[in-house]
Amino acid sequence: MDLLRKEKFHLPEGVIYLDGNSLGPMPKDVPLAVNSMIENEWATHLIKGWNECAWMDQPKRVGNKIAKLLGAPDGSIIMGDTLSIKVFQALDAALSLRSDRKVILSDNGNFPSDLYMAEGLIRLKSAGYELRTVPPEDVANSINADVAAVMLTEVDYRTGRRHDVQSITEKAHSEGCVMIWDLAHSAGALEVNLEGSNCEFAIGCTYKYLNGGPGAPAFIYVRPDLIEQIQPALSGWLGHHSPFAFELSYRPGEAIERMRVGTPPVIQLAALEKALDLWSDVDMQELRDMSLKLSRIFIEGVEARCPSLELISPRNNHERGSQVSFGFENGYAAMQAIIARGVIGDFRAPNVMRFGFTPLYIDETDVKKAVDTIDDVINNRLWDHPNFLRQNRVT
Amino acid sequence: MDLLRKEKFHLPEGVIYLDGNSLGPMPKDVPLAVNSMIENEWATHLIKGWNECAWMDQPKRVGNKIAKLLGAPDGSIIMGDTLSIKVFQALDAALSLRSDRKVILSDNGNFPSDLYMAEGLIRLKSAGYELRTVPPEDVANSINADVAAVMLTEVDYRTGRRHDVQSITEKAHSEGCVMIWDLAHSAGALEVNLEGSNCEFAIGCTYKYLNGGPGAPAFIYVRPDLIEQIQPALSGWLGHHSPFAFELSYRPGEAIERMRVGTPPVIQLAALEKALDLWSDVDMQELRDMSLKLSRIFIEGVEARCPSLELISPRNNHERGSQVSFGFENGYAAMQAIIARGVIGDFRAPNVMRFGFTPLYIDETDVKKAVDTIDDVINNRLWDHPNFLRQNRVT
Repeated sequence: MDLLRKEKFHLPEGVIYLDGNSLGPMPKDVPLAVNSMIENEWATHLIKGWNECAWMDQPKRVGNKIAKLLGAPDGSIIMGDTLSIKVFQALDAALSLRSDRKVILSDNGNFPSDLYMAEGLIRLKSAGYELRTVPPEDVANSINADVAAVMLTEVDYRTGRRHDVQSITEKAHSEGCVMIWDLAHSAGALEVNLEGSNCEFAIGCTYKYLNGGPGAPAFIYVRPDLIEQIQPALSGWLGHHSPFAFELSYRPGEAIERMRVGTPPVIQLAALEKALDLWSDVDMQELRDMSLKLSRIFIEGVEARCPSLELISPRNNHERGSQVSFGFENGYAAMQAIIARGVIGDFRAPNVMRFGFTPLYIDETDVKKAVDTIDDVINNRLWDHPNFLRQNRVT
Repeated sequence: MDLLRKEKFHLPEGVIYLDGNSLGPMPKDVPLAVNSMIENEWATHLIKGWNECAWMDQPKRVGNKIAKLLGAPDGSIIMGDTLSIKVFQALDAALSLRSDRKVILSDNGNFPSDLYMAEGLIRLKSAGYELRTVPPEDVANSINADVAAVMLTEVDYRTGRRHDVQSITEKAHSEGCVMIWDLAHSAGALEVNLEGSNCEFAIGCTYKYLNGGPGAPAFIYVRPDLIEQIQPALSGWLGHHSPFAFELSYRPGEAIERMRVGTPPVIQLAALEKALDLWSDVDMQELRDMSLKLSRIFIEGVEARCPSLELISPRNNHERGSQVSFGFENGYAAMQAIIARGVIGDFRAPNVMRFGFTPLYIDETDVKKAVDTIDDVINNRLWDHPNFLRQNRVT
């Protein structure tokens, strides 16, 4: 099957959607799957749905589908909660594996919520813990024997800058640190190899490149040889060894099951599970190659025609994720005008215009049209025209 | 409008559903509302849905609808995560309000996940913290000046035993303790008055009596005069004062917004929001009175006709929630047979048969039929007949 499968997605007429790195579009099969879950499962099976419709197994079943895309073994990933909660779980577990050290190392290009959750965890713990945040380019040199856990997002949400997972993980391990990778901008975008990387933990979200819908649950990966050592602090009943024994004390569940917390969002997971069907035949290396090809066409087109836009993303393919960002002083207003013309990217403070390249539903023609639109908006300063936004709103 | 509104729910033919205390049935308007969220909002508005479709406001908007049912002011409740996570947030905040004390007091009838989350929080914090668990009847006498936080579930999930919110909260306050109420079996079942109770925190779930669907998100209430003092440990970006400023350090959001963590489950919330429309004209006192009337008919019927079943729930109305539990040595097998006959209750170890009474879709005729079925199953020991379950399975 071709990589490109536009017909599987609902893409509004006249829209070129370059924001799948923020919220993926709706796979056309999702509404029926969700409706079936609600009308054929919940409505009919009622409480018995937990067993009869296998809702109880859904977090692990869906996790296994994601594991296939991330080079992770069956049973090493489970779904639930939000990415922020999964960051907290991974950090807590990492610190417990390296309890003689007190430093969490991250970078100031990390997604802020990851840093906030680390701050919160540190405030809970006894004194002495520290979140050390360095510029992305200084991470490797800052890994040393003080550091308990290195927590990084592979691809920077603003710039698209990509860390070298292999070399940083090796450096972390050489200094005895635990490695946590946030794959928010990697899962469904890059050729991830969790098992090969040997990292201890990974987390990520599913509403971006995996098209699970707004608020789709997060995932957590724990390296299988470590899972039996983890005593989760967010020790909810569905992570208990025997939830329905209703024991008064917590005993961790088997393997990855212990990273569950409360009742899973069954409706939300039904949407995600169906969305993941689109990935069953995707070769991640092929997808990555196409994403880079589209990105290059975009970079070359924009740079040739819009010299006032400055490339913020790394120019080298291997240092960049699946998005391209340009800095522009009127970035916010310009992005509004570009969106009004049907090319949807987004803006991140202070001046970043972001565009994501998702080869399942974006092709070269789309990218060239997007460049034409950006050229028109930037070079004619269309955001300055008072009635422009009103007249051109397409959706 | 009548309290009884069976026509608003999908109830499978031949089923009398006495398990709304575990998972409420599907309101008939939910599938269309969820489909509209997916097809008209996500599919069409894409990333712009966060603003254009007000997804960002959904956790507070839905929280306000629940606040009306719980005697809580606008802006004091917010939705998100699971009940276990909300327990953790409430406990963490409670301990920070009373940081000179180290004891969490609960009872051994509390739902185990609440106790597990307390264990987990204590393990994270510095030494000296203790979870003290006493029998429910000893709670009031165990509240003293050692106790930082009293955390109780109003209605016992197994027995239906109801704590006296007013007197326990007053006792807790008289000893300087912070009071947390878990309303899992109260919201949508009892006449709750959060503002009147003066308790500091409340949490609860929405898939039971509120019919939000499997995995519907939880809620948290914080007494409005305290919210500005709370520095949440689960400090996710959507609880930040300015999430889209992407600052590197956490600053708590305005008022109850700070209890948000990550991206809300928008599809799941759409189901819940529609389900809550059924409550706009419900008088909670009238509902409670009817629930007690149905419960009494049930207790009297079962006790008269099934002397081998022992009432576990308190006999006094004011000491009981909206469910009735009987102990029976063959409880598990008997419940399977009762379910096979179309009367759906559930079983909790070691010997508890639970039945919930939900006046929006259960009436006196249902209760009398349920008693007939239980009579038949128990007195004819139908679970002993080898082919019974196979032949009688109705759904």
